[in-house]
Order: sequence, then structure tokens, then C-alpha cells
Amino acid sequence: MDNKLLSALFSDVRAKRPLVHHITNYVTVNDCANVTICAGAAPVMAHSSDEVVEMVSMAGALVLNIGTLDSLQIESMLRAGTKANELKVPIILDPVGVGATRLRTNSVRRLLHDLDITILKGNAAEIANIAGAEGNIVGVDSRGVKGDPLDIARGLANELRITVAISGPTDIVTDGKHTMLVDNGHPLMGKVSGTGCMASSLTGAFASITKDYVTATAAALAAFGLAGEKAAQNCRGPASFKIALLDELYGLTTEELEKGARVREA
Amino acid sequence: MDNKLLSALFSDVRAKRPLVHHITNYVTVNDCANVTICAGAAPVMAHSSDEVVEMVSMAGALVLNIGTLDSLQIESMLRAGTKANELKVPIILDPVGVGATRLRTNSVRRLLHDLDITILKGNAAEIANIAGAEGNIVGVDSRGVKGDPLDIARGLANELRITVAISGPTDIVTDGKHTMLVDNGHPLMGKVSGTGCMASSLTGAFASITKDYVTATAAALAAFGLAGEKAAQNCRGPASFKIALLDELYGLTTEELEKGARVREA
Amino acid sequence: MDNKLLSALFSDVRAKRPLVHHITNYVTVNDCANVTICAGAAPVMAHSSDEVVEMVSMAGALVLNIGTLDSLQIESMLRAGTKANELKVPIILDPVGVGATRLRTNSVRRLLHDLDITILKGNAAEIANIAGAEGNIVGVDSRGVKGDPLDIARGLANELRITVAISGPTDIVTDGKHTMLVDNGHPLMGKVSGTGCMASSLTGAFASITKDYVTATAAALAAFGLAGEKAAQNCRGPASFKIALLDELYGLTTEELEKGARVREA
Repeated sequence: MDNKLLSALFSDVRAKRPLVHHITNYVTVNDCANVTICAGAAPVMAHSSDEVVEMVSMAGALVLNIGTLDSLQIESMLRAGTKANELKVPIILDPVGVGATRLRTNSVRRLLHDLDITILKGNAAEIANIAGAEGNIVGVDSRGVKGDPLDIARGLANELRITVAISGPTDIVTDGKHTMLVDNGHPLMGKVSGTGCMASSLTGAFASITKDYVTATAAALAAFGLAGEKAAQNCRGPASFKIALLDELYGLTTEELEKGARVREA
Repeated sequence: MDNKLLSALFSDVRAKRPLVHHITNYVTVNDCANVTICAGAAPVMAHSSDEVVEMVSMAGALVLNIGTLDSLQIESMLRAGTKANELKVPIILDPVGVGATRLRTNSVRRLLHDLDITILKGNAAEIANIAGAEGNIVGVDSRGVKGDPLDIARGLANELRITVAISGPTDIVTDGKHTMLVDNGHPLMGKVSGTGCMASSLTGAFASITKDYVTATAAALAAFGLAGEKAAQNCRGPASFKIALLDELYGLTTEELEKGARVREA
Repeated sequence: MDNKLLSALFSDVRAKRPLVHHITNYVTVNDCANVTICAGAAPVMAHSSDEVVEMVSMAGALVLNIGTLDSLQIESMLRAGTKANELKVPIILDPVGVGATRLRTNSVRRLLHDLDITILKGNAAEIANIAGAEGNIVGVDSRGVKGDPLDIARGLANELRITVAISGPTDIVTDGKHTMLVDNGHPLMGKVSGTGCMASSLTGAFASITKDYVTATAAALAAFGLAGEKAAQNCRGPASFKIALLDELYGLTTEELEKGARVREA
């Protein structure tokens, strides 16, 4: 992997400051807004079905996150997503807790069926559940998966003809043909609510820059993971880690990303 | 009080990592999620009436918090609570601001009437209001109460046959017969939005471990208060105090809890 | 400007601890609650149309913020606002993202038409949009405005007969006749989601103290900006800056405000 590609995307995010429209959960929404700013992009959170079509028309990317789903929100997601597809605005779907309830499972199916989702990003159990493999979901946590995550991701990407990302100690990003593995990150990221959501926000920012969605996602995850590695050196626990993570992302230079990204082809 | 009981519960929370299902307010929900993780448990926030029954079926405890109540949320609370009762999942009710408006007062009455609430945890004015004593509520703050909080708590616990907890400089926990007082804590906890909500989340985590709900609540409040005492030594104001509070809870050992818990029988 | 007026107001906020009722967005609501506490006032967030009338009746100020607007929320705002007008409780309106969508534009028009708004506080593009001038809004960000913000603010204040505030490197506060400029602040405030919302919360706290709304707003913005200046000396990026900002506001003395406020007449 030539890390210059990754750092060039990061540089473009900061230069273009794309608007990332979120329809997301109320648990981690503040962190999603701030992580988007720290990356150099501009967040907007808008959920009303009366305005999502106009809002997404200004956006470089649309992030759909079902962390605190309800039926009204799904309608807004479908409406915004339809407009995004029309305008070729990339859509990132974070299927938080899919498999835990029928509402989440059916909603994700409907979003994947009715919309052209660009990037589907979740933890191993979430992606396994969507792929029809066995994933053990407790609430919104992955507690293991049967089968090889890489095979599951590739199979699902080929079936849906989209980019699939699985977060974990090594992140997997694939469109079925081209696969990248990202080794950046730190275990404390698993001790903070919302790091998965934040990674999806960043993926949105990067996906607004290029149509090479595998590289865009890998760049977002590498930048976030690298910020996490740096943050871990300067914290006293999960809460100060989250603060440091945002600070480090804000301060991360394209040179540091080029040097520190640990992304490999698989 | 034998502090080994408290630290054994804390140890069990971390070993079993119970799922704590919250139907809670959007003001402090992120802190509730993170405090649950820092204690060693797993949070899930889900409010839609279309999924709360399934979600609570996976949970070790259900936390109902009316901080930003509306009529839809009450319906979801009743639905989730009915299932929790059926499955013997303990329910913690935090009656934020009860007494300030009829919506809050009537909703708390309905929750207490229709559900078997396990633990009712509030500030002095909230508990006094529910007990029919005079409690001065301004917004969601307790501004004093007429009468002895200990008597009010005991009377209400006996009347409702539940565990009642009143937070304050000394926390009161009682089922009407057995009463524990918790002296841990720090005044800065009163300068942060959501410490009461966070304490309810922790109470949920501990209540999932044992049916001795008085001890579970006392253990949760002692652990939280002790983390607060440690955090106060390492902060510059309320905001850095909250960060330190979460970090200290995450780092708190069972040995430290056993040594530092200041819990006494009353 | 005699800074003693400003510091006297700050002293009163802390002595009287007014309740500030917010109907606000779910992105920055936690920061709004905490900034209100750090200033010495008491926040309450309540949105249900079933309780806003009672809640605002206890309040010293009502803050309406349309950051994550929907039709239900507007109804609650109108209901709360009508009661606030009846009781002479000042209303602060933060028209977040007005101009970006018809929902926002029409809602702000309706709020300004149906209610006696006391203070309208936004960024340059938002205020320009309301005034009928050209403001470039992307999502919820101001990206420039055609014309002189001071003229726009004065014109709008005279037209609507209210106090208008425009946040920026130099904040403008005017009722059309009397104008104050506030030079306090720091560029990092633009790198944190919600500093505008937080400034509106503080404006609510100060507006509950005096009917001189220009001075109240200037005092709130000076205190917030001064806390920002101090915070910037003690942070590593936007996230630790926000923590320090809240801590510094909490620790800010009336003497420091008197000495450090940079407010001038225009």
C-alpha cells in the first residue's frame, strides 16, 4: 500500500471541508460532530423528514447510524438516502446492533434493499448477521462470530456489490475484489462508547473525496486508529482517552499519517 | 458493614459484564453509556416501542430515567417494564424532576402502579414528592425537603415494598427494614449534569448481580462516590472532574473498593 | 463600557441561580446543561408539549435552539414561548442553520412572528438570512455574508424591536440603538461543536437577571469568551479545550471578568 494515497485523501478532506450529513443516534452524536470537525470536515445532524432531502443535497456524504432507531427515523433515512442516490452522494450505513432486535434487522434489510448503500461498516457480529452467518450480538456489542470475518466481508461485498468494512483489532475493508487491512488502533477504543460511530463519521468525510471507497475507508480508519495510538500514550483511562483521541486527530498531520498508517493489501 | 460483600459484587459485574438496558434522557445518555462501560458492564440505549421488549429480554437490568420525558417514551417504558417483570429483570427508576410538572408526577405514579419497580433512586426532593412529603423541586434540582429524608425513604420503601435510595452528601439506601448509609462522594458531583443519572446506571449494573438490592445499590453508590473522591484530587473544575470520575471508576480495583467504601448500617 | 456592570450581573447569576429552560438540539444539549451549571445557574431540558408550559413557569429564561428541529419540537417551542411571553420570561432564540432548509427558515419566521422573542443570537450568515441579506450557510456553518454584519444586526434589531447578537471574532450585540462589541474569545471556540449553543445558554442565564438585554448578552459573551481565552492556554486540542472552557468558566471570578472583559460601545 502506498501511504501517499491515504495522506493525499486526508489533505483533501481538510482542503475541501465537506459537509457530512448524519442521521444518527442520540448517544454518541456529539462525539460524531466533534470527530468530523477534528478531521477537518463539517458535520450537520438533521433527522426531520421535512428537511433531510434539502440537507443531504448540500452534503458530500450521508451517514446513517441506527444506534437508537425508531420508525420515524427509518423513514427519514429512506428519504434522505433516495435523494443521496439521485445526486450520487455516497451513503455510509452503520448497522448498530443489527441482529439484536427485529426492528434493527428488518430496517437494515430495508435500507440495503431500497437504497444503494456505498459503504456498510460494522463490527464482526453485525456484518456476520447481515451476511446470514452466525454473529453473537448482545445489545450493541459483538461477542464473537462463527467463521472467518474476511471471508464473510468479501462474500457480502460481492453479493451486495458494495464496500464492506469490519472494525476490530485489524479492520477489514473490501469491495469483494480489492481488500485492505488496517492495523492501526488501540484496545482503549473498545472501552469508549461511540468509537465505532465516530469511525463511520470519518468514513463519510473521506468517502466524499474519492470514488475509491476501499481506500477512502482504509484512510479514515488508519487516521482514526493512529490518533488512538497517540492518544493512548497520553491518558489516564477511557474518558481522558476519548478527549486525547479527538485532540490527536485534530493535530494529526498528513506526514504523520503517511508515516504511521499501517495498511496492507490482503 | 462488611466491605467484602461490596467488592465481591463489583468483581462479579466485571466478570459477568451484564447488559444494562436504558430508556433514558438525551441530556446525559452518553455519560450513562460510558459509566456503564467503565464499571465493567455493557450499556444499550433503545427506546422504540418496536424493540424494547426484545432488548430487555437480553438485559441484566432495566434503567428507566424520565429526565426528558414524553408520552411516547412512557409507553416504551411500560412495555419494556412489563417484560422485565415477567423475566424477573430488576428495574431501576430514576424519577428526574418528579413534582416539577404533572407529566412527570403522573408518569412516575403510573410506572410505580403498573410495574414492579425494584429500586427507586432520586434526590431528596424527588423522593419526598413521591412519598407525599414536601420536596422543593426547581426544574430537576432538589432545593430542600421538609422532614427527615431517612424517615421518608423508609416509609416509602415500606409502603411500596421496594428499595428506595436518596442521593446526597450521605446516600440513603433502604428497603424499609434494612438501611445502609453511604458516605463516599465529593461536592463536585453536584456540579456536573448527570451524576445522578450515572449513579442509576451503575445501580442497574450491580442490581443485575444479586437480589440483595440494598447491598447492590450501596455498592454502586460507594464505588461511584469513591471514584469521585479520587477524581477530585486530579481535576481543575467540573468538566475535568467528570473525565477523571470515569477514568477513576474504570481503574478502581476491588481491593480499593473494599478498603475505601464508607458504608454503614442505620 | 463600565465592566462593573458586567461583573455585577455575573455575581447576580451566581447568587440567584436562575432556572434556564431549554428546548434544544440533542447534539450539544449536554454541553448546554454543563455550561449553565458552570456559570452558576440551573439548567432544565424539557421538550414535551405536555410539560413545557409548567416548566417555563418556573424559569428565569427560555432558550429555543433549532439545531435538530422537527415539527413536534416547534409546537412545544410555540407553547412554551407563549407562556413565557405571558409571564415576561425572556426568550433567547438561536436559529441554528436557518437558511439551509425551508423547515428551518419557516420555523424561525413563525417563532419570530408568533412570539415576542427577546434576544436573537446566531452567526453572521444566520442573522443575514433572517434579515433578508445574503448569508452563505452550509449545513449549520456560516461561510460568509454579503454586507456589513453590524448594519445587518442593527437593521434587524430595529425592524423586529428585539436584541440581536452575532457571534464571531468580535461579537456584535445591539437593540438597534445601543450597540456593544465583545472582543473576548479564541479561535478554538470555532473548532468545537456547540460553542454557539453554549453561548445562548449563558445568554439565557444573564437575561434572567436584568431587562437591559444588550448588557446581559454582552456580559454572557464576555464571560464565555474570557473563559475561552484562559482555556486556550491550557489545552492540547479542541476536545481538551472544551473541558478547560467549562472548568475556566466555573472558576472565573467576578473580579477577573471585570478586569478581562473587552467590551466596547459602537
